[in-house]
Amino acid sequence: MRILLTNDDGINAPGIKAMWRELIKLGEVIVVAPETVQSATGHGITIATPLLTSEVEEPDGYKGIAVDGRPADCVKVAINQLIPGPVDLVVSGMNSGVNVGINVIYSGTVAAAIEAAFLGLPSIAVSLHLDHEIKTDYARAARWGRETIEKILALGLGKGQVASINLPALRETHEPLGVKVVRQCIQPWVDTYEQRRDPRGRKYYWNNSIFTLGETEDDTDVAAIREKYITVTPLQFDLTNYLTLKKWQEAW
Amino acid sequence: MRILLTNDDGINAPGIKAMWRELIKLGEVIVVAPETVQSATGHGITIATPLLTSEVEEPDGYKGIAVDGRPADCVKVAINQLIPGPVDLVVSGMNSGVNVGINVIYSGTVAAAIEAAFLGLPSIAVSLHLDHEIKTDYARAARWGRETIEKILALGLGKGQVASINLPALRETHEPLGVKVVRQCIQPWVDTYEQRRDPRGRKYYWNNSIFTLGETEDDTDVAAIREKYITVTPLQFDLTNYLTLKKWQEAW
Repeated sequence: MRILLTNDDGINAPGIKAMWRELIKLGEVIVVAPETVQSATGHGITIATPLLTSEVEEPDGYKGIAVDGRPADCVKVAINQLIPGPVDLVVSGMNSGVNVGINVIYSGTVAAAIEAAFLGLPSIAVSLHLDHEIKTDYARAARWGRETIEKILALGLGKGQVASINLPALRETHEPLGVKVVRQCIQPWVDTYEQRRDPRGRKYYWNNSIFTLGETEDDTDVAAIREKYITVTPLQFDLTNYLTLKKWQEAW
Repeated sequence: MRILLTNDDGINAPGIKAMWRELIKLGEVIVVAPETVQSATGHGITIATPLLTSEVEEPDGYKGIAVDGRPADCVKVAINQLIPGPVDLVVSGMNSGVNVGINVIYSGTVAAAIEAAFLGLPSIAVSLHLDHEIKTDYARAARWGRETIEKILALGLGKGQVASINLPALRETHEPLGVKVVRQCIQPWVDTYEQRRDPRGRKYYWNNSIFTLGETEDDTDVAAIREKYITVTPLQFDLTNYLTLKKWQEAW
């Protein structure tokens, strides 16, 4: 199996390296990832400027191509130009930060996986919940990620299909309660901003929102990750609201 | 009616100004838009840097607040900080470039409308197809946009509902064939890149894809805009693939 591995935290992030160490157990892994951190860039792409590339190689064997662009750019240029021959699976992550609920829409990690699906490939996003009170063990989380990927592949992940895996934050003495296949929570995330003035009196605003796994219906990704399950959510990229479509088609 | 007007081409773009001139016929219009061009930024948000603001005012009465951020940031900070009192409708556009098919996912114009929906507001994205062989008449297109917005509001656009309007490119002697309520086309867009080398031998890649309204099923936004209809597509932001969800829940 040939796997393209990318992410949105950048090619030098601990999450992608931990994921690489696990995925090489499954096949050949080719890393093409952003040169710099691209968190919360959503599904942006680069059209007005060129994508510079450079090679990364480390003593432990980790190597790949860094692209001066966004996560979706990495997938596009990797498939289109950088990787000769076919790719069987695209994995995006492991992201430092959970991508549940509305975060799915902002996430560069998920955008890379969706881009791969546009291109007709099966793809999986992997994200890890960070809890500042718990020391993050990337190696252990990547193992859970790889095991969940293997299970999804065994169930069958077709061309153009996307799965999003989220891993809970757990102390070293705890294990995940299991895996839950759950829908995306669509409750809003409460935003807060702090207003300040620059030395010249111009107003500016800092986003100081703290992402919390708030109250939600029990069958969602947010609820399951809060309860310390690994979550799996199959995603799609048709944004049509079919119920309203039908209503408006009849009433127009 | 109080309308928040934003876009992704920047506060000085011809499309937002043309839209403003039409929307002031419907009520009070408050413009909060990016300071600079934000095309293809997708649903990015700004969390690591502050959002600087400045006031824009022109002799014809057009005025607003420019935000040094992305389209989704403009909506967030406008609702949260900049606009005192309630907003009844958010309009994003008119974008210079059509947002049909897979472009919906990359579009900053649509991202701003979806952000407004997260925040519980009714919202409408408006995008104009540019054809380099046809002179763009923003004023005329904005009139079609405003008329379509009025029709959607008459049908009823609820809290958290999103509509996306696309306007066809037409010579001055032609009129749209009508309005079609259609689903989003999900066919892939063919990407091409050109590889070059910088003066130091480092490889870089330019995306040289040309967006074309290719072949597609007849009931989609891409087909309708190609046939010179105005298109209306109701959107949603739950990316869960429910068919696969059910299958995997049973099989896991």
